Amino acid sequence: MKILENKTISDVPGFQAVGIYSGVRRSGKKDLCLIYSQKPAVAAATFTKNKVKAAPVLLNMEHVKSENTQAIVINSGNANACTGSEGFEDAVTMAKVTAKELGLTPPEVMVCSTGIIGVPMPMDKITKGIETACKSLDQNHADSAAKAIMTTDTFTKKITVLTHIEGKDIYISGIAKGSGMIHPNMGTMLSFITTNINIEKSLLQAALKNSVEDTYNMVSVDGDTSTNDMVIVLANGLAKNSFITTTNDSYVKFKEALDFVNKTLAKLIAKDGEGATKLIETNVIHAKTKKDAKLCAKSVISSSLVKSALFGSDANWGRILCAIGYADGDFTPEKVDIFFKNPIGSIQVAKDGMGIPFDEDTAKSILEQEYVNILIDLKDGESSATSWGCDLSYDYVKINGCYRT
Amino acid sequence: MKILENKTISDVPGFQAVGIYSGVRRSGKKDLCLIYSQKPAVAAATFTKNKVKAAPVLLNMEHVKSENTQAIVINSGNANACTGSEGFEDAVTMAKVTAKELGLTPPEVMVCSTGIIGVPMPMDKITKGIETACKSLDQNHADSAAKAIMTTDTFTKKITVLTHIEGKDIYISGIAKGSGMIHPNMGTMLSFITTNINIEKSLLQAALKNSVEDTYNMVSVDGDTSTNDMVIVLANGLAKNSFITTTNDSYVKFKEALDFVNKTLAKLIAKDGEGATKLIETNVIHAKTKKDAKLCAKSVISSSLVKSALFGSDANWGRILCAIGYADGDFTPEKVDIFFKNPIGSIQVAKDGMGIPFDEDTAKSILEQEYVNILIDLKDGESSATSWGCDLSYDYVKINGCYRT
Repeated sequence: MKILENKTISDVPGFQAVGIYSGVRRSGKKDLCLIYSQKPAVAAATFTKNKVKAAPVLLNMEHVKSENTQAIVINSGNANACTGSEGFEDAVTMAKVTAKELGLTPPEVMVCSTGIIGVPMPMDKITKGIETACKSLDQNHADSAAKAIMTTDTFTKKITVLTHIEGKDIYISGIAKGSGMIHPNMGTMLSFITTNINIEKSLLQAALKNSVEDTYNMVSVDGDTSTNDMVIVLANGLAKNSFITTTNDSYVKFKEALDFVNKTLAKLIAKDGEGATKLIETNVIHAKTKKDAKLCAKSVISSSLVKSALFGSDANWGRILCAIGYADGDFTPEKVDIFFKNPIGSIQVAKDGMGIPFDEDTAKSILEQEYVNILIDLKDGESSATSWGCDLSYDYVKINGCYRT
Repeated sequence: MKILENKTISDVPGFQAVGIYSGVRRSGKKDLCLIYSQKPAVAAATFTKNKVKAAPVLLNMEHVKSENTQAIVINSGNANACTGSEGFEDAVTMAKVTAKELGLTPPEVMVCSTGIIGVPMPMDKITKGIETACKSLDQNHADSAAKAIMTTDTFTKKITVLTHIEGKDIYISGIAKGSGMIHPNMGTMLSFITTNINIEKSLLQAALKNSVEDTYNMVSVDGDTSTNDMVIVLANGLAKNSFITTTNDSYVKFKEALDFVNKTLAKLIAKDGEGATKLIETNVIHAKTKKDAKLCAKSVISSSLVKSALFGSDANWGRILCAIGYADGDFTPEKVDIFFKNPIGSIQVAKDGMGIPFDEDTAKSILEQEYVNILIDLKDGESSATSWGCDLSYDYVKINGCYRT
């Protein structure tokens, strides 16, 4: 598997993508993205588990059942959430307009929105925007698509890999936006992946569902799950590899590449968490079960106390032990070892559930870096899990508390 | 039931309490508290659910089984947590020394610690401190006991009520400390209650367990559960009411007063959360079940996004709807109404799961107060629940992130 620098979703054979400005975002930044597969494609998707689901999420839960999916239209600036039946009609209209322009049926179009909650959609602008986007698909737009799905993200998030199955070139490319929440109620995790692999729809869904569990679902910026979160994969089969209908070697190879793409995007989202000054990766190893490992890893990355300590580059291992202690995961407190690691170095701060003497300066030099790895060895089994997050900074509070003041 | 201003736990007939400085806290503040019942008493207690339990918690889980409990010794400055077998021996020693001085057996003494995690106990200082405290019990110490259990609390937390059962004066008094976490790893919720009621031990335990569920367990400062949390009640029976052995009218009356005491202390703890600028009370009403109501109320009070918005006095109802959406509680999103209330006024910001136009200035004037009530009407049933917390401020991050820097 090879990483292709400077490539994006529209560089995958048979796919086009464009981002334009439709007039929704006051900032004047691009706010409408269209992803199109020139040939019939199968789609797989996962949606937010929040009981409060935005209109496009509810619509896509139906549209994803379509045997053919050739377009995804995304607007940023308005989440179309908590907007009632009118909001749902607006999502339906977005699919209809896109389908009409591209010669598709509405169910063959997926719709996504991210932005402010509870505000009616400015459909006049969005409708015109969709028409404009559809007409400009054939031009070369490089990163305009990745830019148009951003809200308060500070950088675009994309990754493209190339792998080979039966000697065929298999491309998998993804773009994502993270949960920056500068504007009140903004913030959603969206990820769109295009691939030219030839695979059965049900198997693509299985691969995505499994992949999401260990990637996006192991990211926490502030523990709040958005009303709009969504991950969508489109596979158009142009690679012409023999149709994958079972979890054979080809499937395994594809799944590995898909996991890498999702993991890369998940880490970029964590790194760009609101106010973040560093990326925190937590590895829990030697847990009794995978579930125990995941629960402990997620608890640490979600602890405000741990996140604040890391912002202050404070080797506060007691809070880490405390955080796994109140997680639902099973482990033996008297066995836990804790280390802080990164390219700068590695230092053990706790052994067998107790603190051990360590050099504060060395610990600080490690924790002051932009990437910090918390290694937790439960010495209790053979399972492991990884979670990603960021520190809790003054800017998080400023961004989320004082925007309107 | 009457609130007795300026009274404390040692004003309950048969009880004495004292707080002294033993030399553990660098600040020179009182750091050792002793609560003593001159007559035999029954104890009830609840302990942290954190799997990582401090030594005194493990010891008390045994000592609480004793039919007689006449003393509680508490030190602040060192949590005696993650200190291994040596730490457990230190807790045992604290009970032994106290028992010897007061003519009791070690199991008749409860031990509590709060402070730094993972540091060995300075037992020489603590042993001398206990001896000094035991010798000075007979003097009048007013609030010294409540002061001595504080770590980074900014004010003492106490409440005393008087109720009548069979014409007898029943006193219930409590002191507590909250989870200020200024010093790395400090922060524990401790509450000690004394009463002169005559009640069966098993029934006192039932009353406390039930009371804690709706009071202390509905408080969240930052979602982190300490390794040392503990609530202990001592009842010495001096009121001479007929021995309560069933949930009769006397029990119900006592339970009401006990709930009031615990609720008052819980609110004081929330108000004094680290960096807090305001007390947030969340009422969830008309839920399908009590469990649904509690899950939703707890989720809102624990959301960093909601807490940050309240710090900024931002009427950010979308985040509240989002927070109950990812809680495990069941409700119908399309039915939810949300209001902000306090003595300044009341304003509705969401109706039937959607935003409604409201006056931003009025909302701001309500949210800028030191007390804000978030009322969430699920319009889905007859159950309700209340949770308490505080806003997320710059100081929280400063306190927890930058202490050592």
